[in-house]
Amino acid sequence: MGEMRLTVKHTGKGNEVESTTDAGARMTFDGEGGAYGATPMQHLLAAVAACSLMDVDIILKKKRLEYANLRAECVGARPDTGTPKPFKSITLVFRVDGNVPQKAFEDAVKLSVEKYCSVGDTVKHGAPIAWEARVG
Amino acid sequence: MGEMRLTVKHTGKGNEVESTTDAGARMTFDGEGGAYGATPMQHLLAAVAACSLMDVDIILKKKRLEYANLRAECVGARPDTGTPKPFKSITLVFRVDGNVPQKAFEDAVKLSVEKYCSVGDTVKHGAPIAWEARVG
Repeated sequence: MGEMRLTVKHTGKGNEVESTTDAGARMTFDGEGGAYGATPMQHLLAAVAACSLMDVDIILKKKRLEYANLRAECVGARPDTGTPKPFKSITLVFRVDGNVPQKAFEDAVKLSVEKYCSVGDTVKHGAPIAWEARVG
Repeated sequence: MGEMRLTVKHTGKGNEVESTTDAGARMTFDGEGGAYGATPMQHLLAAVAACSLMDVDIILKKKRLEYANLRAECVGARPDTGTPKPFKSITLVFRVDGNVPQKAFEDAVKLSVEKYCSVGDTVKHGAPIAWEARVG
């Protein structure tokens, strides 16, 4: 087994929490409605999509396709009430503008979500991940 | 069921991906070794700890304890090779400096990790979460 290590610190300003990676990248977290950063659940949801978007981009580039505005609309379903409120399912709608055949886009998204993405592969046991791929 | 929604965009600069919340908070992601942000897996690991740190802070404040440097050292275990490389287990070592009884700190960490944290409650099915609590 390999290990990923990082340290996360509470700054003492409201609910602000931050972490700086060895490479110098900074992540900032805040509570709901807070001004310092996105919430931990927003980071989780965005991380699932970000992981797949990087792979989709690499696959489309390899196919020498011309495109722009590669993005994913994410929906995380969770209980309205009670504690905790985990995601029970996640839906990602991938979209792209440009000269991309629908089939090529679907293939790229399917590979990235179902085969490559380590975040999704960690999360899917608690929150199954559904996806769509739409050009335009 | 409630819904959390957000949109995640590929910027086209290297592997950079970003998302801005309705509240205006920005999250930035990059591939391994990238300069633009932490990786999606780093966001995932940090989010588990951030979620619990916020609750631990709230609980300690309610107990009117004096402390500083509330933090968590995170270790995510994942395969060395192959694709994908999901977390198979996560260990969080919570630490704090100050006048905090060990028992009070343990109780706060236990509550936050095992009862309150929505990120952990989503992720634990794929990656069980172990914790320790150490004062000083």
